[in-house]
Amino acid sequence: MAIGVFSNEEGARFAPDMMGSGVHQGALDLDEMLESVGIDGTTVGDNLRRIGYAGETECGDVRARAFVELHVEQGPVLEEQGITIGAVEGVQGISWGEHTLTGVANHAGTTPMRLRRDAGFAAAAIACAARRIAGEMGGDQVATVGAITLVPNLVNVVAKEAVLTVDLRNTDEGLLREAEARLADAVERIAGDEGISVARRTLARFEPVDFDPAMVGLVEATAERLGYSVKRMPSGAGHDAQMFAPNCPSAMIFVPSRDGISHNVAEYTAPEDLRAGADVLLQVLLAKANESGGR
Amino acid sequence: MAIGVFSNEEGARFAPDMMGSGVHQGALDLDEMLESVGIDGTTVGDNLRRIGYAGETECGDVRARAFVELHVEQGPVLEEQGITIGAVEGVQGISWGEHTLTGVANHAGTTPMRLRRDAGFAAAAIACAARRIAGEMGGDQVATVGAITLVPNLVNVVAKEAVLTVDLRNTDEGLLREAEARLADAVERIAGDEGISVARRTLARFEPVDFDPAMVGLVEATAERLGYSVKRMPSGAGHDAQMFAPNCPSAMIFVPSRDGISHNVAEYTAPEDLRAGADVLLQVLLAKANESGGR
Repeated sequence: MAIGVFSNEEGARFAPDMMGSGVHQGALDLDEMLESVGIDGTTVGDNLRRIGYAGETECGDVRARAFVELHVEQGPVLEEQGITIGAVEGVQGISWGEHTLTGVANHAGTTPMRLRRDAGFAAAAIACAARRIAGEMGGDQVATVGAITLVPNLVNVVAKEAVLTVDLRNTDEGLLREAEARLADAVERIAGDEGISVARRTLARFEPVDFDPAMVGLVEATAERLGYSVKRMPSGAGHDAQMFAPNCPSAMIFVPSRDGISHNVAEYTAPEDLRAGADVLLQVLLAKANESGGR
Repeated sequence: MAIGVFSNEEGARFAPDMMGSGVHQGALDLDEMLESVGIDGTTVGDNLRRIGYAGETECGDVRARAFVELHVEQGPVLEEQGITIGAVEGVQGISWGEHTLTGVANHAGTTPMRLRRDAGFAAAAIACAARRIAGEMGGDQVATVGAITLVPNLVNVVAKEAVLTVDLRNTDEGLLREAEARLADAVERIAGDEGISVARRTLARFEPVDFDPAMVGLVEATAERLGYSVKRMPSGAGHDAQMFAPNCPSAMIFVPSRDGISHNVAEYTAPEDLRAGADVLLQVLLAKANESGGR
């Protein structure tokens, strides 16, 4: 057995997310990722060296025969249903796009509405379109505009530039592609109407992942054997385990998040739930180790 | 004759705008304005002391019997019509509001759309509502959301807070009030639908101003006498002259702005137009000085 802790699972500072596990499993290129520039203008490589985390072991020297990850749910489902353990069957696909909109800075008082090429308004219209698309598609489709930056960002100046991110997720790859296409149509229409130009770059793109059925079954059976309530469920967030899933049997264990809150200082999981999760993790790993005679 | 140059006419860093002339004319309180906190967290008073502009002359020691201001149009009208001089009849009313929206930070993947309290989406919806209101009202009504700041402003986190400004202007006070009321309704509806709270503060509020008809006539007659084409027109932007208008005969002279562009490094007025404007300004001031025997 080995414990793996991967750099930059979150991706909020350096895109894409699941960077360390992605590199370890060969889905991302090491040198390219070391040169990834963060929102503060520094690179991943610079920071790994600065904090002494740029190790000397070759990437891939340690291979996994199976991978199990314990995580807080980061959503409201387990708490709402009074269940302790989630046996995660798969992970939503993720599409992150950054749009840079270029209009014309102008005076907010003297520029008639019909003559405006307002990058800030276009950004707002795209954020509203993303919400509308999620509503129209329904099901598991989610859409989030979490970051908007206007230039010059002043009360009395029509914005000349706006940068906004759009985060789209779905458990179904076909539906995720539909959401991407609908968004692209909306962006094109809004930019055309406002007379602004748009440059889009992909910050992250991962297809939905199905975990190994035998591993999911083992998590579920182990929780039941230990006397914990358990439920099969998908993951709404991306996790390192999905990087291992194409290469070895993988699965995840979820424990409840109070009020479903995550990415917030109020994030909380009760100690007894953390212990239950660790208990299931240990017994699943022991079962896998015993299967192969241990190593 | 005296030349007046007033601090902080723009108001982009420290609200409200027309601060120096407003204090000089008694419309704004000196001590309150010195404590006005800018977007960088420092105060007007601190900066006046730092740059050596905190003078010792009592505010109001120099009074004006009449006031004339020369300015670039900052709009496209003079250029479009091939006219050199604008005799400004009045100034649009201005309403600046800052809205702080408070929602709940949450995970962009695991939080179902129906459970979101997304301050970023609400800000975008308000920006779209402001544009729609200006369109529905038509006429001279303009509406601008020039500044939006999200917290934490990350791709994969539903924003817990958004701060946005709304700049509304109209030449008619009744219509400006209607725009303010429509916007307030939209903000309340959007906040209610999204389950977020809103705090609004007024950054600036000025009623429309009519300049003294005799002064406007003098500007127009002077331009004609000097052989310049001239047109009576309103100002879309706020200017120091409107602070003097309630207290003494006041007027403004406009010269063309290339492509109507302002609040942008591309702002440009041709040297011959600047000279024409200065020429009219001088002759208007001489006429006023001769009227009273000079001083």
